[in-house]
Amino acid sequence: MAPSAPRLIVPIDLKKKPWEQKLPLHNRWHPQIPPVAEVMAGEYFRVEMVDANGGNIKDDNSSLDVKLIDSSSFHFLSGPIRVLDVDGVPAKPGDLFAVEICNLGPLPGDEWGYTATLDRENGGGFLTDHFPCATKAIWYFEGIYAYSPHIPGVRFPGLTHPGVIGTAPSMELLNIWNERERQLEENGLKTLKLCEVLHSRPLANLPSTKGCHLGKIQQGTPEWERIAREAARTTPGRENGGNCDIKNLSRGSKIYLPVFLDGANLSTGDMHFSQGDGEVSFCGAIEMNGFLELKCEIIRGGMKKYLTPMGPTPLHVNPIFEIGPVEPRFSEWLVFEGISVDESGRQHYLDTSVAYKRAVLNAIDYLSKFGYSKEQMYLLLSCCPCEGRISGIVDSPNAVATLAIPTAIFDQDIRPKTKVPVGPRLVRKPDVLRCTYDGNLPTTKNPASIM
Amino acid sequence: MAPSAPRLIVPIDLKKKPWEQKLPLHNRWHPQIPPVAEVMAGEYFRVEMVDANGGNIKDDNSSLDVKLIDSSSFHFLSGPIRVLDVDGVPAKPGDLFAVEICNLGPLPGDEWGYTATLDRENGGGFLTDHFPCATKAIWYFEGIYAYSPHIPGVRFPGLTHPGVIGTAPSMELLNIWNERERQLEENGLKTLKLCEVLHSRPLANLPSTKGCHLGKIQQGTPEWERIAREAARTTPGRENGGNCDIKNLSRGSKIYLPVFLDGANLSTGDMHFSQGDGEVSFCGAIEMNGFLELKCEIIRGGMKKYLTPMGPTPLHVNPIFEIGPVEPRFSEWLVFEGISVDESGRQHYLDTSVAYKRAVLNAIDYLSKFGYSKEQMYLLLSCCPCEGRISGIVDSPNAVATLAIPTAIFDQDIRPKTKVPVGPRLVRKPDVLRCTYDGNLPTTKNPASIM
Amino acid sequence: MAPSAPRLIVPIDLKKKPWEQKLPLHNRWHPQIPPVAEVMAGEYFRVEMVDANGGNIKDDNSSLDVKLIDSSSFHFLSGPIRVLDVDGVPAKPGDLFAVEICNLGPLPGDEWGYTATLDRENGGGFLTDHFPCATKAIWYFEGIYAYSPHIPGVRFPGLTHPGVIGTAPSMELLNIWNERERQLEENGLKTLKLCEVLHSRPLANLPSTKGCHLGKIQQGTPEWERIAREAARTTPGRENGGNCDIKNLSRGSKIYLPVFLDGANLSTGDMHFSQGDGEVSFCGAIEMNGFLELKCEIIRGGMKKYLTPMGPTPLHVNPIFEIGPVEPRFSEWLVFEGISVDESGRQHYLDTSVAYKRAVLNAIDYLSKFGYSKEQMYLLLSCCPCEGRISGIVDSPNAVATLAIPTAIFDQDIRPKTKVPVGPRLVRKPDVLRCTYDGNLPTTKNPASIM
Amino acid sequence: MAPSAPRLIVPIDLKKKPWEQKLPLHNRWHPQIPPVAEVMAGEYFRVEMVDANGGNIKDDNSSLDVKLIDSSSFHFLSGPIRVLDVDGVPAKPGDLFAVEICNLGPLPGDEWGYTATLDRENGGGFLTDHFPCATKAIWYFEGIYAYSPHIPGVRFPGLTHPGVIGTAPSMELLNIWNERERQLEENGLKTLKLCEVLHSRPLANLPSTKGCHLGKIQQGTPEWERIAREAARTTPGRENGGNCDIKNLSRGSKIYLPVFLDGANLSTGDMHFSQGDGEVSFCGAIEMNGFLELKCEIIRGGMKKYLTPMGPTPLHVNPIFEIGPVEPRFSEWLVFEGISVDESGRQHYLDTSVAYKRAVLNAIDYLSKFGYSKEQMYLLLSCCPCEGRISGIVDSPNAVATLAIPTAIFDQDIRPKTKVPVGPRLVRKPDVLRCTYDGNLPTTKNPASIM
Repeated sequence: MAPSAPRLIVPIDLKKKPWEQKLPLHNRWHPQIPPVAEVMAGEYFRVEMVDANGGNIKDDNSSLDVKLIDSSSFHFLSGPIRVLDVDGVPAKPGDLFAVEICNLGPLPGDEWGYTATLDRENGGGFLTDHFPCATKAIWYFEGIYAYSPHIPGVRFPGLTHPGVIGTAPSMELLNIWNERERQLEENGLKTLKLCEVLHSRPLANLPSTKGCHLGKIQQGTPEWERIAREAARTTPGRENGGNCDIKNLSRGSKIYLPVFLDGANLSTGDMHFSQGDGEVSFCGAIEMNGFLELKCEIIRGGMKKYLTPMGPTPLHVNPIFEIGPVEPRFSEWLVFEGISVDESGRQHYLDTSVAYKRAVLNAIDYLSKFGYSKEQMYLLLSCCPCEGRISGIVDSPNAVATLAIPTAIFDQDIRPKTKVPVGPRLVRKPDVLRCTYDGNLPTTKNPASIM
Repeated sequence: MAPSAPRLIVPIDLKKKPWEQKLPLHNRWHPQIPPVAEVMAGEYFRVEMVDANGGNIKDDNSSLDVKLIDSSSFHFLSGPIRVLDVDGVPAKPGDLFAVEICNLGPLPGDEWGYTATLDRENGGGFLTDHFPCATKAIWYFEGIYAYSPHIPGVRFPGLTHPGVIGTAPSMELLNIWNERERQLEENGLKTLKLCEVLHSRPLANLPSTKGCHLGKIQQGTPEWERIAREAARTTPGRENGGNCDIKNLSRGSKIYLPVFLDGANLSTGDMHFSQGDGEVSFCGAIEMNGFLELKCEIIRGGMKKYLTPMGPTPLHVNPIFEIGPVEPRFSEWLVFEGISVDESGRQHYLDTSVAYKRAVLNAIDYLSKFGYSKEQMYLLLSCCPCEGRISGIVDSPNAVATLAIPTAIFDQDIRPKTKVPVGPRLVRKPDVLRCTYDGNLPTTKNPASIM
Repeated sequence: MAPSAPRLIVPIDLKKKPWEQKLPLHNRWHPQIPPVAEVMAGEYFRVEMVDANGGNIKDDNSSLDVKLIDSSSFHFLSGPIRVLDVDGVPAKPGDLFAVEICNLGPLPGDEWGYTATLDRENGGGFLTDHFPCATKAIWYFEGIYAYSPHIPGVRFPGLTHPGVIGTAPSMELLNIWNERERQLEENGLKTLKLCEVLHSRPLANLPSTKGCHLGKIQQGTPEWERIAREAARTTPGRENGGNCDIKNLSRGSKIYLPVFLDGANLSTGDMHFSQGDGEVSFCGAIEMNGFLELKCEIIRGGMKKYLTPMGPTPLHVNPIFEIGPVEPRFSEWLVFEGISVDESGRQHYLDTSVAYKRAVLNAIDYLSKFGYSKEQMYLLLSCCPCEGRISGIVDSPNAVATLAIPTAIFDQDIRPKTKVPVGPRLVRKPDVLRCTYDGNLPTTKNPASIM
Repeated sequence: MAPSAPRLIVPIDLKKKPWEQKLPLHNRWHPQIPPVAEVMAGEYFRVEMVDANGGNIKDDNSSLDVKLIDSSSFHFLSGPIRVLDVDGVPAKPGDLFAVEICNLGPLPGDEWGYTATLDRENGGGFLTDHFPCATKAIWYFEGIYAYSPHIPGVRFPGLTHPGVIGTAPSMELLNIWNERERQLEENGLKTLKLCEVLHSRPLANLPSTKGCHLGKIQQGTPEWERIAREAARTTPGRENGGNCDIKNLSRGSKIYLPVFLDGANLSTGDMHFSQGDGEVSFCGAIEMNGFLELKCEIIRGGMKKYLTPMGPTPLHVNPIFEIGPVEPRFSEWLVFEGISVDESGRQHYLDTSVAYKRAVLNAIDYLSKFGYSKEQMYLLLSCCPCEGRISGIVDSPNAVATLAIPTAIFDQDIRPKTKVPVGPRLVRKPDVLRCTYDGNLPTTKNPASIM
């Protein structure tokens, strides 16, 4: 018998750039990006990954790197990994591909990460109209815990997970993506019912050769040119999983991904030491280099058996997953509500995104009374294990969203008190690293705060 | 010393109509609805409530009562309850009013409830374009558990809570509500960025004398006429709490409500034996008659200390709350994703409501393969303790929402299986009670299901 | 259809004595105590119970009632309840009788309880050599919570359960009990390997006519005389369940009891609002009057299928059970260890009882530094939801036992602190109600505390 | 800034014997075993450890290595580690030494472990009178999960922890240990109240030069001879922590250890991938090589502030600890009871060890009906995350102990069923590796099983 260490199929050398790795990374979805490794169903294997920005954000004292980041190149993904059954027959379109996350974590010797929000001109985050500046906080890990010199007084166990995990799209599915996102970008502001109070720009990120990396396909070749013009950006989660940023895809969880082409071609990246539901500040988890240890199975014909397409084609499906048994356990939660009325007082119709924006704004303001800056709390709520819930979605005209924060992550009691006089309890001097905002996009004022 | 049974301050006699009760109920929000009872801070008291529909939905074999329901009269609320401190000084505008739910449950001898979805012509539910018929399922309670003859094979512990709990608005706040909702109703379809794939109608429910009950104010009097024309409907959650339908407001939770007028004037109703996040089928919890046992405190000046207004006035706040320690505990969850692409394949921009709609549709289709009708699963996901999460809200253009279902509520293993051949496991004969849909509103087809 | 309120099969009138009830209670185990009620498998029914002492302990300002209590008469049990299957055939010896606790709680209008420890001369508790006085604390309930004027600064949700639940023994089993307990009492101190550091007396409680109540069998009759001399006392848990004092037999749990005679003859009593593992102070839960709402099934031949006898006869079995889904949830625990070395420094061999005694003593001393008397903490650890674990049982010569205390039940942070200077934080003036100890039994000194 | 990888202070080379390591291991407690490393309060550091048996148990197809094991040499410990505060002042006697377990796990590339029970002649385990043979099961790890080819059909997440963690005793404390254990060994069978139904032998393990390793002190020197004759064996947990085998000392837990000599001299070893409460089969966790990543603090004078001695000297204390936030989460448990009546039917007095023995025997027999051998279940209950509780300790004469097993670790439903006929569901062919028992010690028969 032999001890069962996982086979390392995608190694990362942190001294090299993503495209210089032995198995070069890619940052687009396309069926013709060639696999870099193969695994068998039942095999226990290890994949290493660089952080979403491929090492461009540093553990230093400035957020200038965040302000200047080229957003055309994330996320750098490890793979594609071709999957075969025990007889060597590859996964086939129509199969379901079950991936169990047996273990994951930061790369040994590299136990740190960052949480950032982009400059508003560069896309910003969920609350970019309130917080237009590029900001950054560095986090250090002590085993299961993370703490930040930029957000003192909090420490929490990570619910570590990959932000991006997905199978490769078929050409047909890729075309569907590109077409529907192009329509949004072209007509969104006029014809679609856009949640206009969400100010991130642009509306979509269409294929572009700028910043494009396609793994083993050499940059500048005609093949690269062609694929780069077709290949989908990794920003949104889609039918293949992708950047779904689901914080519960952690140790022991099992993901059922649809297979769209021979071998399934699994890619993964964007490791998060921890993230709150919504990942509101956008680079908003604790972003890190990391590894996954996986085990997979093929459920033949499983797409039909288990996933019902909902849309114009049989490809319009979504993955499903099971949550693992070792999530951090909290018993006390403080919860903030939001309803779908925006900061100007305008009523929206059952708009959960607006309601959640209100809940997050409410939480930031509340917590800032305990000795924090609002930017600190914006980054914290983006990366700590808080839960965003769709509480009510039928009570016209208001959607109700809630944000639940585990109180144990703070070193002070943050609950309202009946008797104790309240004010800024502790003025915590350090702040997040922050650049100026030099753009001209409008910001949202809170009229009530001026009174 | 004397045992501390809670003082019953609002009794209900189930043999009488809501407006015939000793302390007559009301179904509108208005500052001038007179209090029916008074409590002291620190006192332990009991409030009884009728179900949201005031007894109009019966424990019988037909859903005709649901189809014909007059939606102008819900929710029937117990109260208002005036709150004083231990010195007899009432709660004041600007205070925070902390209510702890010490206990709650169905009324003794009345251990049943129903889950329903309205006819599409009558407002429908979250998925009314898919499921336009009025339907009903009856649930019976065995202590902490509920089961339904109309949805066999499931049984679950209730996370019981009041759907509606709130303080009375001041006249100023009431005017804000009426104005913004009127604007939505008048201009919504044209000018607001409406999530058009949500088909509930009407957009808002403006004040109406039809079906209006104002507690001690006698119907038909000039005072009643005036107030009825001003008083806000109870459907949406708002700044005062109200119909927030937050399933975690259960045993041991503590709610911090803003006070807008002298005495706070707490009203509550719409008891739910159990509800899933979103309450998707609209009458969608397990609706029941019930009681609350409460204890309250006044935090003087607490609105300023703890709630930051976000909007044009200092009244634009939302309640906060703490979750109690005895929620049902589940360790295994099956989770469904949805992204903000609608059933026609159209791309929406970071629209969580659309994404959640997809997640719920995905779950219904999946579960219907285990021997259920889709209507059974629509009602089940509306009332069982499932969790709706805002997973990703920044990855343009897709919001990602997830719906997590505790697998232990089913008497069969509903997880995907690698080896076992799958098909309808059990054809479960009984179905929900269902009426025909006789209207002409368009329904949404799932193009993929026809292929 | 009809709402499913549980059928009340054993009512209690708190104004009457246990033996004056309409269905008179009993406080012994004997096969010939006649059933007072019948239930069908599948039926949902309600049983009401008096507290273990049958109303002799009062909600007043003295512990004299505890000091003077006649321990020959507890526990007063409701039942026996005869169980039939749906065809009217009674449960048979060899069956397994599954009882689900659907709901439970205090009797309405009687929301209080007490925790006590008996005088050492009267049996005392687990630590009677340290705390020989009779003491009492009164608890009041606010829904799920209990608080005591005698132990200020703590409040916790109850994990309510019946201390006693069991089926009637057959004559054969009863004889086994009486014989083995008689042997212990006669020879225990000399020949058996008694844990001598446990000082409760007497060793066993043999049948006695004193204080005996046998339900419908009239006191003083020859039948009563005969049965009273044979009937087992209820103090210990035995093969039939009985006074097992398992705190997790709460809402939603399911108990599988062996059936020893026709009809099973279920009896239950000794309701506890809350109890810690071990119930160390003896009357040590929060003792109360209460009710159970139950549902039961018969598993024909289930003793053989599921319970393996371990001992000289097929009757030497123990019940099994499943834990329910709504136990109070705590995330932070402070844990105290104990090893099997007694207070004199003497080494015992793998003796878990000695180890647990040390763990409890350690916890009491630790907690008393936060402003409490040791008697307060003794009673608290007896009734709060703390967990007693058998951590190591093989590492000769020391057994290791641990006591885990949920920190959230205190209104102060009781964890050790690195920086803050520590001392009695709060001198909490009220204490438990305490009598003098007038006996002559030796007490255990802690030599270290004198230095 | 620099990423905060833990500093490796005790490295292990698995190709070398424990005494050949760069920092040689020790297997005794003595104040004069010299420290091999130093750490500062606040520092984040890593300690690697070999398994309890120092590599003598192999991943092979025989349990002969278990049968022949020399028990005089375990446990091999890493350390001692000297602890200083940030000013370089060592921890002092009377301080409290707080160690936080930030991370832990198997050594990379060595992801396997074993569970064994020794031959009865060699000490056996908790149930050695029932199971006298040496047995072994190999476990392989897939991230958080363990599975065994010798116990098919189970798989569970590990609650990984060090079996041994402790500070060095002072000479005074060491003398106390040796004296009390010598008294037990000399007089135990005659004079002490031994739980005679626990058959492990010998009663205690006194100092011996055989198998003794003292770290940097060279074997055979006069110093080694002297210390070896004084140094305490590591088997039992004691005042300094040591082999307490507390399964909850896992990720995120924090242990408060007393300091008995300058520098505290922390030693640790005996890593367990997983263990059940009690570790009943003795080598009974999943034993493995592993690492700890720790952070520590010194609480000056903390022994007096937080630990109360209980015994003849101020040294008679026990550690306390806090449980971490990422324990595996289970919602369904099947629970077995045991009372203090032994297999011959004899009554013991409040003897929790006897009661727990019954609970474990009951569980083994029950589970063996689902297609397992009893030896498989004995090893499984020793190493899976089951909980052993002291449920009742005051109800003379019976102690009640319970063993709770999470049902989700099995791939079949192990709960009792009302309707389904039951029998051996699956005959699972593989068994544990088992030797013959060639000794003459008596075994315990279960009389009932012969009938």
